[in-house]
Amino acid sequence: MSLPVPRKLLEPMILRALEEDLAQGGDITTLATVPPEAEAIATLNTREDATLCGVTVAALVFEMVSDKVTFPSQAVDGQSAPAGSAILTVQGPAQALLTAERTALNIISHMTGIATATAHFVKLIEGTDAHIAATRKTLPGLRLLQKHAVRSGGGMTHRISLSDAVMIKDNHIVAAGGLTAAIARARRFAGHTVKIEVEVDTLEQLREVLPHKPDIILLDNMTTDDLRQAVALTQGQSVLEASGGVSEATVRAIAETGVDVVSVGALTHSVRATDIGMELSL
Amino acid sequence: MSLPVPRKLLEPMILRALEEDLAQGGDITTLATVPPEAEAIATLNTREDATLCGVTVAALVFEMVSDKVTFPSQAVDGQSAPAGSAILTVQGPAQALLTAERTALNIISHMTGIATATAHFVKLIEGTDAHIAATRKTLPGLRLLQKHAVRSGGGMTHRISLSDAVMIKDNHIVAAGGLTAAIARARRFAGHTVKIEVEVDTLEQLREVLPHKPDIILLDNMTTDDLRQAVALTQGQSVLEASGGVSEATVRAIAETGVDVVSVGALTHSVRATDIGMELSL
Amino acid sequence: MSLPVPRKLLEPMILRALEEDLAQGGDITTLATVPPEAEAIATLNTREDATLCGVTVAALVFEMVSDKVTFPSQAVDGQSAPAGSAILTVQGPAQALLTAERTALNIISHMTGIATATAHFVKLIEGTDAHIAATRKTLPGLRLLQKHAVRSGGGMTHRISLSDAVMIKDNHIVAAGGLTAAIARARRFAGHTVKIEVEVDTLEQLREVLPHKPDIILLDNMTTDDLRQAVALTQGQSVLEASGGVSEATVRAIAETGVDVVSVGALTHSVRATDIGMELSL
Amino acid sequence: MSLPVPRKLLEPMILRALEEDLAQGGDITTLATVPPEAEAIATLNTREDATLCGVTVAALVFEMVSDKVTFPSQAVDGQSAPAGSAILTVQGPAQALLTAERTALNIISHMTGIATATAHFVKLIEGTDAHIAATRKTLPGLRLLQKHAVRSGGGMTHRISLSDAVMIKDNHIVAAGGLTAAIARARRFAGHTVKIEVEVDTLEQLREVLPHKPDIILLDNMTTDDLRQAVALTQGQSVLEASGGVSEATVRAIAETGVDVVSVGALTHSVRATDIGMELSL
Amino acid sequence: MSLPVPRKLLEPMILRALEEDLAQGGDITTLATVPPEAEAIATLNTREDATLCGVTVAALVFEMVSDKVTFPSQAVDGQSAPAGSAILTVQGPAQALLTAERTALNIISHMTGIATATAHFVKLIEGTDAHIAATRKTLPGLRLLQKHAVRSGGGMTHRISLSDAVMIKDNHIVAAGGLTAAIARARRFAGHTVKIEVEVDTLEQLREVLPHKPDIILLDNMTTDDLRQAVALTQGQSVLEASGGVSEATVRAIAETGVDVVSVGALTHSVRATDIGMELSL
Amino acid sequence: MSLPVPRKLLEPMILRALEEDLAQGGDITTLATVPPEAEAIATLNTREDATLCGVTVAALVFEMVSDKVTFPSQAVDGQSAPAGSAILTVQGPAQALLTAERTALNIISHMTGIATATAHFVKLIEGTDAHIAATRKTLPGLRLLQKHAVRSGGGMTHRISLSDAVMIKDNHIVAAGGLTAAIARARRFAGHTVKIEVEVDTLEQLREVLPHKPDIILLDNMTTDDLRQAVALTQGQSVLEASGGVSEATVRAIAETGVDVVSVGALTHSVRATDIGMELSL
Repeated sequence: MSLPVPRKLLEPMILRALEEDLAQGGDITTLATVPPEAEAIATLNTREDATLCGVTVAALVFEMVSDKVTFPSQAVDGQSAPAGSAILTVQGPAQALLTAERTALNIISHMTGIATATAHFVKLIEGTDAHIAATRKTLPGLRLLQKHAVRSGGGMTHRISLSDAVMIKDNHIVAAGGLTAAIARARRFAGHTVKIEVEVDTLEQLREVLPHKPDIILLDNMTTDDLRQAVALTQGQSVLEASGGVSEATVRAIAETGVDVVSVGALTHSVRATDIGMELSL
Repeated sequence: MSLPVPRKLLEPMILRALEEDLAQGGDITTLATVPPEAEAIATLNTREDATLCGVTVAALVFEMVSDKVTFPSQAVDGQSAPAGSAILTVQGPAQALLTAERTALNIISHMTGIATATAHFVKLIEGTDAHIAATRKTLPGLRLLQKHAVRSGGGMTHRISLSDAVMIKDNHIVAAGGLTAAIARARRFAGHTVKIEVEVDTLEQLREVLPHKPDIILLDNMTTDDLRQAVALTQGQSVLEASGGVSEATVRAIAETGVDVVSVGALTHSVRATDIGMELSL
Repeated sequence: MSLPVPRKLLEPMILRALEEDLAQGGDITTLATVPPEAEAIATLNTREDATLCGVTVAALVFEMVSDKVTFPSQAVDGQSAPAGSAILTVQGPAQALLTAERTALNIISHMTGIATATAHFVKLIEGTDAHIAATRKTLPGLRLLQKHAVRSGGGMTHRISLSDAVMIKDNHIVAAGGLTAAIARARRFAGHTVKIEVEVDTLEQLREVLPHKPDIILLDNMTTDDLRQAVALTQGQSVLEASGGVSEATVRAIAETGVDVVSVGALTHSVRATDIGMELSL
Repeated sequence: MSLPVPRKLLEPMILRALEEDLAQGGDITTLATVPPEAEAIATLNTREDATLCGVTVAALVFEMVSDKVTFPSQAVDGQSAPAGSAILTVQGPAQALLTAERTALNIISHMTGIATATAHFVKLIEGTDAHIAATRKTLPGLRLLQKHAVRSGGGMTHRISLSDAVMIKDNHIVAAGGLTAAIARARRFAGHTVKIEVEVDTLEQLREVLPHKPDIILLDNMTTDDLRQAVALTQGQSVLEASGGVSEATVRAIAETGVDVVSVGALTHSVRATDIGMELSL
Repeated sequence: MSLPVPRKLLEPMILRALEEDLAQGGDITTLATVPPEAEAIATLNTREDATLCGVTVAALVFEMVSDKVTFPSQAVDGQSAPAGSAILTVQGPAQALLTAERTALNIISHMTGIATATAHFVKLIEGTDAHIAATRKTLPGLRLLQKHAVRSGGGMTHRISLSDAVMIKDNHIVAAGGLTAAIARARRFAGHTVKIEVEVDTLEQLREVLPHKPDIILLDNMTTDDLRQAVALTQGQSVLEASGGVSEATVRAIAETGVDVVSVGALTHSVRATDIGMELSL
Repeated sequence: MSLPVPRKLLEPMILRALEEDLAQGGDITTLATVPPEAEAIATLNTREDATLCGVTVAALVFEMVSDKVTFPSQAVDGQSAPAGSAILTVQGPAQALLTAERTALNIISHMTGIATATAHFVKLIEGTDAHIAATRKTLPGLRLLQKHAVRSGGGMTHRISLSDAVMIKDNHIVAAGGLTAAIARARRFAGHTVKIEVEVDTLEQLREVLPHKPDIILLDNMTTDDLRQAVALTQGQSVLEASGGVSEATVRAIAETGVDVVSVGALTHSVRATDIGMELSL
């Protein structure tokens, strides 16, 4: 599972990360102590069970520091790996490997953290008909990497930007002068290739929305009882998405109500990095 | 506590975050439903106790979406705020407020999450002589924001880049042909304005390092017993920094060993976003 | 009808256009002959009937050359204007007005050209149930401006990028090992917020596709007879889009077949600039 | 005839075009349906007679999407090609070929459209002593590509930016306090390496300008009778350039008046794209 | 004498300079010691006689660090100023003034150094008919600022880029297969708006070149005797430019030979910064 | 001695230099006269004794103009070379070599000028215990290259940015309300990895500062007598740095006073370019 954009489009983001770490002086410790001609081999290992993600990006970090590195072995994004697994082996100038180490690890441990958490949520609802999806609650500049990590963990990306799909909430309805007007304007503005989603907080609102046949209805912060009733009322006519207060403890009960999608903001806004380290032999 | 760099230097990062969310089509829901002339007032509220951070950056997001917004009230980075506090009030075109909402919230809830966790760790070691510091385990493109958030929570930033200070580890010593050579080369290369830190894993290594009088010694993954011995051996001649396996549960015991600095990677690599929302009235 | 993205996101594109025209030497004619303190007023006029577009962007060009310009009057994107209409009046330093002139005119006459042609096509099919849409056949770097101009002329934007909606063609079907597999994979990959469009060239292919209920079916290069049969076969179950060989001469007949959307590549790939000039009085 | 700047300087422009089309989600149709390991060969063909341009740039688009593509055959910019000719053959990963297709076609069909129109105008004035030239009426961000396409069609580029040559018009003369002052200031400011051109609308103005011996005189919107008289009056002392109202119908008569250059804005501001398609075999 | 390009086009260059100096940590000394609310007034003074340049750019540096600065007084580029003159007074937040100080001084002292040296050379040849010109021997990224400084000192800018004018040297003649071919090809390629300059090292070469009537002839490294003969031979038919080994000691003798232009690489490649300091009162 | 940052991080700076010189039209002389298929070999030679620097960067310029160049021989940064030495041999397309020539020479002659001047100062103080250091008086955008050149000449880089080390001057002390407060705040703000330097102008100030034990004390514009007393007073407790009025004539006397570092602004703010030329054989 490779990234959805070519490497050339990723390079500017990696360069910014490297610029943060190298500043203008570079890795002064390595420059001072490691001879430029020294060769080394390094292995990135996961120190806990994980669903891997970011292997390609980590490799790109090393390549951008030196065009002399090679990768004798490389795992694949989306792959499960038990604690202790080698993820990526890099061979090349020791200076380059040490200089790129932290930037590469920061990226791969963040992305793997997301993929692992996503896979965990997917597993928790196994056997139901629901899917896990991410939200737009991502970190600035990292949306592409975070959405890819969600997909690597078996989740769906949901809207990648505000222009991907219409999502009508309370304020939009008030501003447009009512639900009917809001949906009509949105359909006209967005055109035939874009889906319409409407957010509701109560079953009452749901009943009001249903006749407009939006493509998707977001059920926000509802009890599982209400979710079940919502499923019954909707009869499969719109896709139903549950969101709000989703946690490890609640996700299965929510999925079992019969909703189609459960969206989880924490997958990208509160990430626990996977513990991944690098072993280098000179 | 304002950010260390002028707004003009922050703008490119905010632009990238806005580009991610607006893409080329913009906020199609808002464009379709909210009249351009509609004015509104919005308040960002924290829904849990927090040490605030990112207020200035969130305000900048709104300003970059429209030069017609004003801020009737605004908290200060580093300030404590109980659940339910208003952090930032924004007045201006309703379209702009809705369009900027998610990007602003994503940033402020991440930065406040870091500041809050840092302040929590600082509080846990209150009364000891130790300081909490962050590491270079940051997210790509976010180092400036993350380090500022650590400072807002009362922590120290540690090295901001690889060129800020020398940090000699095992591989550098091997490559340089021994500790003496490594330190000498580093001093010569880095010059008179840069500090030298050396990492040790055992008391034995510490004894070997002490005669070289590095500015700082990093004690990695040591037991509190060993840390206490390290403090005794060093007699204040070098700054002592403990790292590795630092958690809420262990931090106080570590700080009580007498080390000067406790560095915590999780402050920036495993951030839990603070729950911050936006209320808008048209 | 303002642009879908904030001015800050447009500025880099305008800067590139200004850099092209000013290079490093600037407008040497104006610098040599016009005193910096001279003030002037300039009017942009359309010399032919037009549906205006790009007024905001043209104004931004003047603002980026000097922060001392003001706009005493300004038309609105999407507005019809007979030959001889004033579109934009700019007041400020004469040097700035002359320096910005060509860049502003190049943009506004291109965007107005697109809006005018689109409005013409929309008019040609008036009374039918079809809508005019653009395609991804845009000029490099100008997609945002061109799609906005299509919308200003009353057309629909269609996909803004390859990630907005799925469009399955022959090669995708072959690669996926059949239509069923292609649609299934696309649905799974793209998720619940994205529409699926399938392209067919013949009624036979249409019959094969219909049971899969794609959101949209693209009828490529079909005769009006075939289009009519397609409409009959589909019975409103999918949105039908006709494309290929659409011209002023053919568009009405195509629209009258009952298709929902007629997409026209020439709207953006073969634009005739509207003749717009600038009169300046010192 | 290759582009005047190295590929590295073109890359940022191509990247922007690819970013427009791929956004953050990429080519979701291809990603979902085409296996990453599938190889293909694609041919770009012109479907009408054309003077080719943009072959190098189109090839660069493919290379930037994948470094695994090769080009078994490739036409040359400036070359004539009858309808049905293969312009560029690309071999490589099927995903890359499909992902790059639209961006590459958009560029090559625009540039070839310009070169073809230019060659047509050049042909129309064959046998006269005049040359066809473009103007600064180009599209934002595309000046380099458009001017190169004019040259590929046998035309001259004219000023590439406002700093290339002085062009004195009415407003400059008024602002400088008269023609003599305007020319004197321009010569002093621009220095010894830059040419001076003066625009005149009437023979009277021409007579006033001639004694100042500008390098070039622009005869704007004159009748062919007046152009002939202008040629007689000037006696080869300045280069004479005719502009305004130049079309297929009028260009030969204008060229036959004896002017040296006929400049045609439509070559770049109102381009008809050449119909170029891509055939792919998996 | 203001800069030839609008401030918006300068901003990226100033930002890069500020980024160099502020890195990610900012001006830590000022941040730590100066309260954010402290106001101050600062004056930039020249400590030696100078022809000023860079005042606008220095002011822009302060503005980019804080939008709260004002400039109670400001000298003009090109103005002579004796040692001890105030060049620019800046009022605003003390933090901003201190943070911007070094970047502003680095720029203004470099540009003033160039303008002062140029004015000195211009003065040395006063009374002759020659002009002083710069070359393309500029520092990377600084050409615009350096050429502007030369103009501020009374010199001419010469070619700003390789595309401004043709300059034919030995290698071009060899590659083209002779002088006649080289000039003909250059005229055809460059078109009617561009001048042709040919470089010669000997009177013999000059005689060969003269019949081709290039716009300018560069006389490289000739003795003053040869220069005088070159002037006699050329009889004003081409502009004559002398270059090579021009110094304070030789420039007047060279100018007195009757050449039109003397070009001096050292004006931009070997600049002595003017001693300019900043006094700040809190 | 290679540059401290990877080539990928240098490329944007080189691209900007090439853009300055090529603009949009490119090297029109070379394009017009040199056939694209012509191959050549070029040698960069120093025409005076020099300590080389910038060889890697110059090579990168050629590589960015064409990926077909090779380097049969190449000197090393920091190497001494007598007048007439070949520094870099480049083989490849003649067009590329000529197009890159000036940009490559501008960079290498500037960097070698700095390294040579630095080596000269280092030699002048040979046998003393002092080191030569540069300052932050660098040219905008060139700090990385200039600091590297200082190091290549045997000097120390000193602070690379304002965030590298604290430097407390008069204004900071006043603003902080005294020396004690200033140092305390700086230590707290900057943290344990950053050194503190304090500037003093008199022995009196020195006496006041010494008890605070700053890491470094800057002795600004002191006489050699005072410097000697300062050394005596300090007794090795802080590093002593002398600055102000350092020239070839004075540097040895200053170094002989026993200070640890002598910092020289002119190394980077008033650079004399080394005379380096390129010989090309077609």
